[in-house]
Amino acid sequence: MSRQSNRTTDSKKMNSELFTLTYGALVTQLCKDYENDEEVNKQLDKMGYNIGVRLIEDFLARSSIGRCQDFRETADVIAKVAFKMYLGITPSVTNWSPAGDEFSLILENNPLVDFVELPDNHSTLVYSSLLCGVLRGALEMVQMAVDVRFAQDTLRGDSVTEIRMKFIKRIEENLPAGDE
Amino acid sequence: MSRQSNRTTDSKKMNSELFTLTYGALVTQLCKDYENDEEVNKQLDKMGYNIGVRLIEDFLARSSIGRCQDFRETADVIAKVAFKMYLGITPSVTNWSPAGDEFSLILENNPLVDFVELPDNHSTLVYSSLLCGVLRGALEMVQMAVDVRFAQDTLRGDSVTEIRMKFIKRIEENLPAGDE
Repeated sequence: MSRQSNRTTDSKKMNSELFTLTYGALVTQLCKDYENDEEVNKQLDKMGYNIGVRLIEDFLARSSIGRCQDFRETADVIAKVAFKMYLGITPSVTNWSPAGDEFSLILENNPLVDFVELPDNHSTLVYSSLLCGVLRGALEMVQMAVDVRFAQDTLRGDSVTEIRMKFIKRIEENLPAGDE
Repeated sequence: MSRQSNRTTDSKKMNSELFTLTYGALVTQLCKDYENDEEVNKQLDKMGYNIGVRLIEDFLARSSIGRCQDFRETADVIAKVAFKMYLGITPSVTNWSPAGDEFSLILENNPLVDFVELPDNHSTLVYSSLLCGVLRGALEMVQMAVDVRFAQDTLRGDSVTEIRMKFIKRIEENLPAGDE
């Protein structure tokens, strides 16, 4: 239930640790609720999607960023503006596919995993899946269908965290019923 | 599972909206998991406690604050340093009891409840209970037993959010086994 139409875009800047630990509590709860990592990953992605769908409005209001010309510009805005705004980090944008429809975000320091170690019995948990969902949901609201997944994860022994993003298609804008 | 002893205290400052929405996902999940608001409140408080117990170490490292002389100093540190650091707001400290063992934190703008409206069937949900637990857990780690509860909540129609804190006792420091 959204409201707060009178909400100002004043910044409440906070350190990330309380968020990090609260996110940990959420993942822990889901691990209790669902039978296997696969389901937890799916649930986190779904929650993230719902968050992204709502966060995009805040993002557009705060950043005053208009429509991106191409996927490269989208990549830069995500890395330099969105990640900076909501997670306080700036991933690098690399590994472009020749067709320009895929790239990677490299997070040297993923704030979600501070304090975290995966227990042995959760080796297939994609701990930060929420982020994929957030990106997918937010981009869908600006008419971009994008596939988002973790390609590397420091929690699973990789040296960096890599989020791989693949452009699928531009979504046709549906005119609201009653409009011309 | 804590580790990251080599974690630096570099600040990752972020806007609060992603945290706010993620916290909303956590509360929503608990409302699915537990039968009634009472249980959800209890669970949020417990999660907060576990977070506070861990967050205090980060707080002491970042703030370089030593032992407080009295409960008034504790109140000021919580409001002006801790809330500012982790939620980006500075509540006012008021309503001291004559004995100086109780005070209120008044939050004019609780970031946890941006975007939120309580559904009618959750009228007894204390949505931000996590915060009480965080305060309780963190203070316990610095040898203070404190009772923390919401006295007013904008989500339930009050004009401000008020967290009431009551000093119970100083906890004796137990010497680690084997030490003199």
